[in-house]
Parts: sequence; structure tokens; C-alpha cells
Amino acid sequence: MFESAELGHEVDKKRYQREAPKLREALLDVQEELRTQKSFAVIIVVHGVDGAGKGETVNLLHSWLDPRHMKTRAFGPPNEQERQQPRVIRYYDALPSKGEIGILFGSWYANPLLDRAYRRTKQSELDQSIEAIVRFETMLAEEGALLLKFWLHLAKPAQKARLKELEKDPDTSWRVTKEDWDRFEHYGAFRKVSEHALQHSSTENAPWIVVEGSDARYRELTIGKAIEQAIRQRLDEGKHRKTAAQPTRTAKLVAPKDEITLINQLDLSLKVDEEAYESQLARLQGQLNKLSRKARFQHEHAAVVVFEGNDAAGKGGNIRRIVHALDARRYDVIPTAAPSEEERSYPYLWRFARHVPTRGRFTLYDRSWYGRVLVERVENLCSQNDWQRAYSEINDFEQQLVEHGIVVVKFWLAVSKDEQLRRFEERKRTGFKRFKITQEDYRNRKQWDAYERAALDMFDQTSTDEAPWTLVEANDKHYARLKVLSTIVRALEAAL
Amino acid sequence: MFESAELGHEVDKKRYQREAPKLREALLDVQEELRTQKSFAVIIVVHGVDGAGKGETVNLLHSWLDPRHMKTRAFGPPNEQERQQPRVIRYYDALPSKGEIGILFGSWYANPLLDRAYRRTKQSELDQSIEAIVRFETMLAEEGALLLKFWLHLAKPAQKARLKELEKDPDTSWRVTKEDWDRFEHYGAFRKVSEHALQHSSTENAPWIVVEGSDARYRELTIGKAIEQAIRQRLDEGKHRKTAAQPTRTAKLVAPKDEITLINQLDLSLKVDEEAYESQLARLQGQLNKLSRKARFQHEHAAVVVFEGNDAAGKGGNIRRIVHALDARRYDVIPTAAPSEEERSYPYLWRFARHVPTRGRFTLYDRSWYGRVLVERVENLCSQNDWQRAYSEINDFEQQLVEHGIVVVKFWLAVSKDEQLRRFEERKRTGFKRFKITQEDYRNRKQWDAYERAALDMFDQTSTDEAPWTLVEANDKHYARLKVLSTIVRALEAAL
Repeated sequence: MFESAELGHEVDKKRYQREAPKLREALLDVQEELRTQKSFAVIIVVHGVDGAGKGETVNLLHSWLDPRHMKTRAFGPPNEQERQQPRVIRYYDALPSKGEIGILFGSWYANPLLDRAYRRTKQSELDQSIEAIVRFETMLAEEGALLLKFWLHLAKPAQKARLKELEKDPDTSWRVTKEDWDRFEHYGAFRKVSEHALQHSSTENAPWIVVEGSDARYRELTIGKAIEQAIRQRLDEGKHRKTAAQPTRTAKLVAPKDEITLINQLDLSLKVDEEAYESQLARLQGQLNKLSRKARFQHEHAAVVVFEGNDAAGKGGNIRRIVHALDARRYDVIPTAAPSEEERSYPYLWRFARHVPTRGRFTLYDRSWYGRVLVERVENLCSQNDWQRAYSEINDFEQQLVEHGIVVVKFWLAVSKDEQLRRFEERKRTGFKRFKITQEDYRNRKQWDAYERAALDMFDQTSTDEAPWTLVEANDKHYARLKVLSTIVRALEAAL
Repeated sequence: MFESAELGHEVDKKRYQREAPKLREALLDVQEELRTQKSFAVIIVVHGVDGAGKGETVNLLHSWLDPRHMKTRAFGPPNEQERQQPRVIRYYDALPSKGEIGILFGSWYANPLLDRAYRRTKQSELDQSIEAIVRFETMLAEEGALLLKFWLHLAKPAQKARLKELEKDPDTSWRVTKEDWDRFEHYGAFRKVSEHALQHSSTENAPWIVVEGSDARYRELTIGKAIEQAIRQRLDEGKHRKTAAQPTRTAKLVAPKDEITLINQLDLSLKVDEEAYESQLARLQGQLNKLSRKARFQHEHAAVVVFEGNDAAGKGGNIRRIVHALDARRYDVIPTAAPSEEERSYPYLWRFARHVPTRGRFTLYDRSWYGRVLVERVENLCSQNDWQRAYSEINDFEQQLVEHGIVVVKFWLAVSKDEQLRRFEERKRTGFKRFKITQEDYRNRKQWDAYERAALDMFDQTSTDEAPWTLVEANDKHYARLKVLSTIVRALEAAL
């Protein structure tokens, strides 16, 4: 992959002076159009060999483009603060919104490649990382982002010459650190690992562009041109995006041939009487409180609790019973409404990723990312391709949480159609519950079967060993609350 | 202050059942109106004696109000992540936007009161904290927020009885920790400290509402009613806000009687030739790089660099010379455009507070919070009262940064009127610089004297020992860049 970037490419000064100003104008034009259209985000990954001009390229883009509509993030080994959350959270945080250009210095590639070059990880671990990256990038592309990945390359002699040159001049010698020479010693290993990684992560959606870094003029024109052309092309495609028209890749979901489903097998008559409820509730809250205060939980874990279910199934009441057992400084409740304009300008998981808990904390999601495969699917708010690909994207996302030590518990609260109607009517009668009931709820109710079908598919596709769904018989509120609490307590006990 | 909250207030069940549903309806009504109008934010502070129902009150508000338009934050001792930034950053982060209700559990009062009750701080330190809080709350009120501060009180025997009662029942005994009894032992000290603090922080803008906490029904109705009434009253006042009509409290600024000013005393002919520039630039960048990598900087400090100045004075070019010396993972450049709709729904410092650096990092602001006393003043984008109060608000804000170990360096880049025109014309001629020049720049130029007057007032009001302004003669770009870099280097050296 690197051969053609070891040929000694050069651009002479004259040509540079002729071409650079035009290119800069064209870049500003596409940036302005991008900013006005706000139809997609541009993600530029800059990575490569030390001394090949990575930092210079980031600086270049800052001076050639209008920095007010850019977002730059550099990735190195995570600091104390970053270690508190799964790595993927940093990536979400670095994403540009639609209309913006985001520059990712090092990006998600930095650590996996370095770890492998230094033999801190096995080949299989690198391959796993790359696979995860490819899936993440595919998601970004499907969500409409334009991905450009630049690999700045230098042949070994050129790298050596570059480091020596910097070192010789007393004014620039500070740029060369012991670390740089140390990495130079690993040139061979790094090159091999990088080549392997690039081959396996150069996809149709996000190909690598390898650029020889020794000549600054060549490098600048090449990168500038590539960015300008890619944005221009996408702008011109306009609404007719290729991916939107692409056939769905996921196999069609098949409804079971008989009438037995996870939902209709639930025994909704299950109940618990008042007295037993009160004492068990307090006991479970006590257990939950103690678990949440354990040192191991505080230092190595966190909890994500997801609530989905029929309208009026009692999500809010359940959440209040849980947080009652927790220290108010250690939880967040995230109510999910329709996404705001800002939220819509990022991939759909972005607004949830922001609230993933740090060590020792709880985040309770009152509805969640599963909206994509429930309401968005049923109400045709996204394409079939969008919700079908969401299953594996969500599994990947939850997998990242679990790998970071986060306990993920997911509840589907199920009530019968009759019980729901009874609750709707009660809400209408009770003044202070009126806000909970709108025409939309009645409209959703007409789609009962479609929502149930969507829920069943969701269980099939996203109930994993590590983040299983728990279906909760919720016609009786007491029964539901005890089941929810005891499920959380058991999940925490299993983790601790 | 607490006497009337030790009388044993009670509400009987009948009255509660009659009044609570109506109150809940009224609360939902005002919340809905608030949300639709988006004209102000509501900040509810909940604090007080242990066992008086602080947690229950937060839970109550979550069930009585629509939690989708609320934001809750609990404050305790800062965790590792929070210690990375000045305390005030947490407060900004917890603020609700216009139309939202924010609940602050403990809030900015929690630590100062506890620290003093436990004799970890002196009386004078407590008084300083309270003074800072009052100033912060005044700023919030001036920015339009409605502040409600509830203090939940229990007399000592009532607190003891409450703890005993919880402890006796095996189901609730987990709620009482050793810490609670320990704090009970300090009841007297805590009461005394709290009374003092409440007296000095109960202001016209943000009075304390002391509520006896022993009877849940009394507590709930009292708090609910107070919130409902306050929001209702403010909604009804509508556009005719009291503060807007208030006379300006700050004394009028007086222009100097002669013609000598900080700006016209600058020698704009200062220059540095190419050769000297190149070598000094590299030397200073080397020094800056070394300073930024010192362990003491990484662990105890951070840097905020603010750039203001005439249009076309070279802010961008200066910033690029600085970041060239820094590790890309350790700085952020924040370009400041007109505030977005989201940003406008918070106090004006909010959008800058978000980017205050954590330990070992640099944040470079390309224009800053000083926009309030520059462009907003000159273009009448805020009232005179707004920009006049901003001077001390900004001093308070920067003071918080400095106290946290952040080095604050502020530059005013000054060019002459002729040089500015020359640069404007050059930008128009150069295609790729065109985006930097708009009709607005020419409009601003017509206001040259008004901007200069605003800048001079700004230096007078906000150049402090800890965060002084440096005026930079910027007609010669070389000279300006070296002065900027050497100023930063000296400021870091002084801190390390």
C-alpha cells in the first residue's frame, strides 16, 4: 500500500504558487456550500508516520479552511478523565455536525496500531479493533457523513533524514523527542502493522488516501485537492445520495409462523399485594443501595438501565423507585423526547452517548436509542435500511459499554391493550396526569400490532448475553416494580 | 431564621388530598407555559438539614413536574473528573436553559457550609465563598433566571427522631449511615453556620425559603405552591421585567479629559526583520513547548489565552504560531461567532465556560466573553446595564480560573486605521482570503472610535494583577507574534 508513497513525489515552487491560491478558494467555496446546506458532516482522519507532516497538515487545514466551522480533536492515550468512559464516547464527542468539518488527529486508529507495533496486543486483538472500526465508520457513512482518511507516509530513510534535520537545528531540536527515536526503531513493525490495518479498513465508504509526506508542497496540494473534490462531488450529488438508494443489506426479518411470541406468552395477571410489595420494595432498595456503594462498583463499574415499553406501562414510576435507593449525586435520568435540531445533525446514537455514565454512576434512560427500531420504524421516520442496520450498530454500541465494565440492563414494560386504555382514561380524568396523555398516544395505540412486531424483532436482534432484554409483566404496577428492581440487583451482583 | 421552621407545621391528610391535585395541575400549567415562552430559566436550589426531606423533595418535583423539561444535578465533594476544572464550571454545566427548570441538589452552598461546620475553613473563607455565591446568583438573576432557594429545616430533636425512626425499621435502616450520625453530632455548628450563610445570601433576587421538613404533606404543599406562584408571577410580568427597568447600578464611566490613552500611546511602528523573526520565533516556540511539558504544568496548571483586537489585526496568525509549539492533544482553539440559538438560551459566559481547559491543557479563544463589553456594547445588542455589570462578572469568572491554577493571558491586538484598510483591500484581492472580509467589517470600521472607547474601558475595568491585558502593537506581524509568544512564555514561567 505504501510503495507509491515512497517514490519521492515533489511539486516545484512555481506550480505550487500557481495552484495553491485557486485550491484555497475552491476549498472555501465548498466549505461555505457545505455550511449552508447542512446536509452532511465531513470527517477527516489524519494519521501516519512520525515526521511525515501530520501536525503540519492539521495546521494547514486550519489556515486554508474557515476554522469557525471546524472541529479538531487529537487522540492519544486516554487521560484520567477519558478513562472513565468507554473509548467510543470520545469518538462520538469528536464528531462534527452536519455542515461542519471535523478533523480527527490520530483518531480511532492511533492506539490500536501503536499497541500492536509495540507488541502490547496480539494480532487477533488488532484485527478485532479494526473490525470494530470498520463497523463504526460504516455506521457514520450510513448516517450520511463523508469520511476522508489520509495516511501520511515516509520511507524509513526519509523519516531518519527528517528527524536528523530537525534535531540538527537548535531552534527545532525540541521537536524531536526520545519518544520519536524510540518509535523510529520500531519503523519496520509499525509499517507492517499499518499496512495490514489500512488494507483491512480501506472500504468503499471510507477508503484510505496514502500521501507521501516528504515534500510539503506535494502533500498540501494532494490533500487539499482530495478534500475539495470529495466535498464538491457529494454536494453535487445533492439529495440523490447513493446509500439511500442502496438495497438493504440485512436479510429480511421473518415473522414466526405460529402465534406464540415472547409478548403474548407473558402472564399479565401476575400481581403482588400491597403488604408484600411494601416490604419487598424496601428490602430491594436497600440491596441496591448497598451494591451501588461498593468500592468495586465505584471504581470499576457503572450501570445503564434502559426503559422501553407500551405507552402508560409505568416507566416513570419504576424509575422513581430505583433512584429512591440511590445517592442523588450518582445518577442521571435521561428522558427521551423527539430529537432537537442539534441532535438531528449527528448520528442517532450521539445524543445517548453523551450521557453514558462514568465510573460508579447510574444512567437511566426513559426510552432510548431503541427508538430507531421502534417508533422510527413504525412511523416511517427512517428508511428500512436505516432501522435494519441499527440492530448491529446498537449491539456494537452496547458491546463497548459492557467491555468497559458497564452493567447494561434493558426492560420492556408490557401492559395489555385493555389495561392501557384504562390508564389512558384515568390520566384524562386526573388533572395532574393530563400532560402524560396526548392524541399521539391514541394514534400510537392504533398501531399496537406494528409496535408489537417491532418490539419482537428488537428482542430477537438485540437481546445478547451481555445485554439481555427483560420483559416485565406490568399490568400490576407492584409486580413490575419488584421485578425491575430485583433484575437490576441480580445484574449488579453478577458483575461484582 | 429557623425559628418559624421549628414550630411543628403540619397539614392534615384531608387538606392535602384536597389541595395537592389542584396544585399539581397548576404546576404543570406553568411549566408548559414556561416551556412554550422560553423567556427565562427556573433554578431551584434544594438544600438543608439531613433527614428534612431534601431527597424526597427532588423526587417529588420529578413526579409532579414533567421531567422531560427538567435538569437535575446533585453537588457533593468533587470527584476526580470534577477536580480537573474550577468549581464554577460545574455550576455552569448544571444551569437550565430558558424554558427549562433546573434542580440543584445541594448546589454551590453544599461544600462551603459543610467545610465551615467541620472547621475545615475559617469564618473569613466562608464569608468570601458566600460573597462569591451572591455575585454569581446576581449574575444569573440579571441574565433573566428565576431563582428559588429552599432550605429544608428540622429542629435537633426532630432530626434525631427521624434518624432513629429510619434506623429502627430494618427495611429503611440502610438510609442512615455513620456519616449521618456524625453530622448529627455537628448539628449545632451546622445550624449556626447555615443561619449565618442564609442571612447573608438571602437577597432580593434570590431569597431563601425556609421550610420545616418534618411533615411531608406540609413540606410538599409549601414547596409546590412557592414554585407555582413564583413562575406564575414571572410569566404574568411577561416582557415587563423589573430588572430591565432598573437603573444602572454601576457608576457611569468617564472618558479621560486629555487625549492620552493606552491605545494611542502604542508605538505601532515597532518591527522585527525577517531573519531575527525566524530565529526568535523558533526559540520562543521551543521554550513554550518545554514549559507546556513540565510535570508541574501538567498536574497543577492549565492556560487560557484570549485574543481580542481590531478586525484584521492578525489573531488567527498568532494562534497558529502558538499551537505550532504545542502537542495537538493538549489544546483547543475556540473561534467565537455570533451565539447560536442554544447558546443564547444560557447566560453569556456559559458557552465559554464549557471550554475552560482541564489540567495541563491550553484553550485559545479567538474572541471571547469580552464580546459583551465590545461588540454587544457598541452595536447595542445588550442594555447598558448588561454590559456595565459584565465587567465585575468577568473579573469574578477569571478569578475562579486563576484560583484554580489556570494561567490567564489576554491580548489586544492593535493595528492603525490605515493598516487595517490596507489589509482589508489585500484580503479582497486575494481569493482565498475573501471569506475573512465582509460588509460587516467595513461597517465596524465606521465605528472605530466607539470600539476604541469600549476597549479602553475594558482595559480599565478588567486588567487585574492576576489576569492583566497585554496590548500588542500589531502593524508589524512579526513584532506582534514575538511579543505574544514571549508574553505567554513569561506568564507560564512566573506560574511554574
